[in-house]
Amino acid sequence: MPVAVDAMGGDSPLSIQLEGAVRAANELGIEVVLVGQETQIKDRLQNMPHSANKVRIVHCEEMVEMHESPSQALRQKKDSSIRVAMDLHKRGEVSAVVSAGNTGAAMATAKFVLKSIPKIDRPAIATLMPSTQRNRPFVILDIGANTDCKPEYLLQFALMGGAYAQTMLNIDNPRVALLNNGEEEGKGNQNLKETYPLLKKSTLNFYGNIEGKLMYQNEVDVVVCDGFVGNITLKVAEGTFDFVKQVLKEEIEKSWVAKLGYLLMKRPFKALKERGDYTEIGGAPLLGVQGTVVICHGSSKPYSIRNAIRHADNCASMKLNDKISSLVLENQNLLLPRKESTPLAAAG
Amino acid sequence: MPVAVDAMGGDSPLSIQLEGAVRAANELGIEVVLVGQETQIKDRLQNMPHSANKVRIVHCEEMVEMHESPSQALRQKKDSSIRVAMDLHKRGEVSAVVSAGNTGAAMATAKFVLKSIPKIDRPAIATLMPSTQRNRPFVILDIGANTDCKPEYLLQFALMGGAYAQTMLNIDNPRVALLNNGEEEGKGNQNLKETYPLLKKSTLNFYGNIEGKLMYQNEVDVVVCDGFVGNITLKVAEGTFDFVKQVLKEEIEKSWVAKLGYLLMKRPFKALKERGDYTEIGGAPLLGVQGTVVICHGSSKPYSIRNAIRHADNCASMKLNDKISSLVLENQNLLLPRKESTPLAAAG
Repeated sequence: MPVAVDAMGGDSPLSIQLEGAVRAANELGIEVVLVGQETQIKDRLQNMPHSANKVRIVHCEEMVEMHESPSQALRQKKDSSIRVAMDLHKRGEVSAVVSAGNTGAAMATAKFVLKSIPKIDRPAIATLMPSTQRNRPFVILDIGANTDCKPEYLLQFALMGGAYAQTMLNIDNPRVALLNNGEEEGKGNQNLKETYPLLKKSTLNFYGNIEGKLMYQNEVDVVVCDGFVGNITLKVAEGTFDFVKQVLKEEIEKSWVAKLGYLLMKRPFKALKERGDYTEIGGAPLLGVQGTVVICHGSSKPYSIRNAIRHADNCASMKLNDKISSLVLENQNLLLPRKESTPLAAAG
Repeated sequence: MPVAVDAMGGDSPLSIQLEGAVRAANELGIEVVLVGQETQIKDRLQNMPHSANKVRIVHCEEMVEMHESPSQALRQKKDSSIRVAMDLHKRGEVSAVVSAGNTGAAMATAKFVLKSIPKIDRPAIATLMPSTQRNRPFVILDIGANTDCKPEYLLQFALMGGAYAQTMLNIDNPRVALLNNGEEEGKGNQNLKETYPLLKKSTLNFYGNIEGKLMYQNEVDVVVCDGFVGNITLKVAEGTFDFVKQVLKEEIEKSWVAKLGYLLMKRPFKALKERGDYTEIGGAPLLGVQGTVVICHGSSKPYSIRNAIRHADNCASMKLNDKISSLVLENQNLLLPRKESTPLAAAG
């Protein structure tokens, strides 16, 4: 089944998306459906050689701008590219949706159209971060969808992250940890203190708390946090990486000896860049909706879009959501809404 | 006035502390009071040349272990080195206290013995992080003292951080920002949304929200967050730095060309290490108590203890707390406890 690509989303609508989609079709043989302004898409596709039976177009008139309010877009733009793509997915005409557009709008539309997986209150965005062990990244979620999270939500993130690690990273019994400001039980803010016992009771392979430093050392496979902390974590990591790059560059410029040294060290630096950069996988999945949605940076390059399409195709064909549902089922006693679990309600 | 040093605190009591203190006395001419088991201290000092009038000892029998409960230590160990040091400070016999011991116990004891500065509810720990601009670090607080913070506490941190930047970094009108998951007003969790307008109304030079990536780019001088987020930020930064180091080392090992390159690049790497490492300043001040307390890592080296003693001495002699009090006074209308600010209370 084809993957729908939001052709109008991202910082440069109708260019990067089309190029990435055509590359996915040509290089990976994945069928794509481009959702957007048909004549404009056709026009641009003329300059991109592709096999017509792999690349289809579904027309729509509207698009959601990058800084538009998600709720407003959801209410008012029912013919936007992201909405039409989700509708196609809902009707079973595509296996997944890839968008580099307004993240909030993509999330809100996905939740509204596709609905959440039963017992999942809050879909979350996951991504991979590298560990110092080659080819052993870890999953971190949520990285931005939900800022204020109850303990039950964090448990749901843990279950979804565990399912992702099992299915997509092929890890049998992934080690799941809570990102915290100390290792001992009882550490952290009130929410984390209440989440710890839930994870302990779950069927997950619960590692306990992990600190922001140790998480890089291949100690765990899934790191759970709320979307606020997840965002800070990713941005601080990027910022630190940039700091190292900028300062080294500045210091190297100061002497020809160092410049020569840098030339000789090209290969290790290249390896560092590759090992540090998990955007290679292409996009970040929105876990917990009844469907497959992969979200890309607005500034993604065609190669990232291509990979995100492959990533989405894999999530769908490897039945990631079935794994999430089965982990949720195994742990449903922990996910019961607290208010309803009174003796009376239980008796009813 | 001398600086009290908790001689029993830290991972190796009675060794690093004494060496650091003696170095501060010998190299910087700062008078120190070593608080701890007198005979053991005397015994060890015999092997460390020092001028007797710069190094005094105040005896105590007990010590707080690194993993002891702070509240229990406070209740039960009234003759511990950290307690005796704070008591000396309270009586005005020393200008400051430096401890590498149990951080929680040092904080709890400082708050109990010295009391908070009026209108400061929660003292906070501050530290410096580097920006890409040489010699332009920024202050970040809280980095661990308080995990759950109300908006008023974050405002207090902002005022204390501002005072620190003015006094200790010599910045006239420091740019103060909230660490957040986006730049726009209205971003973040509920707490941050409520903190933003408070900071906007304050007399501080409020920059707005800053993300974890941009904070390195010399955009701001003070970054405000709760202690949980502060801890995650520092640890992720350290972890990312370590990741870079470990991966580069591994990749360099693979070829002699790269090894040679590394040799030629020694100087830029050394500069990177120096520019990235603000532990040089020595310890992290506990801001908001009526006194000067500098907290060091349990694993500090003598050189760090020496610098922490200088740091404490500077905070005291530069009257950092007067600056905090005056900023608090300027903004006291924002710090009024919300419940008390009823017309009745105001009239009373």
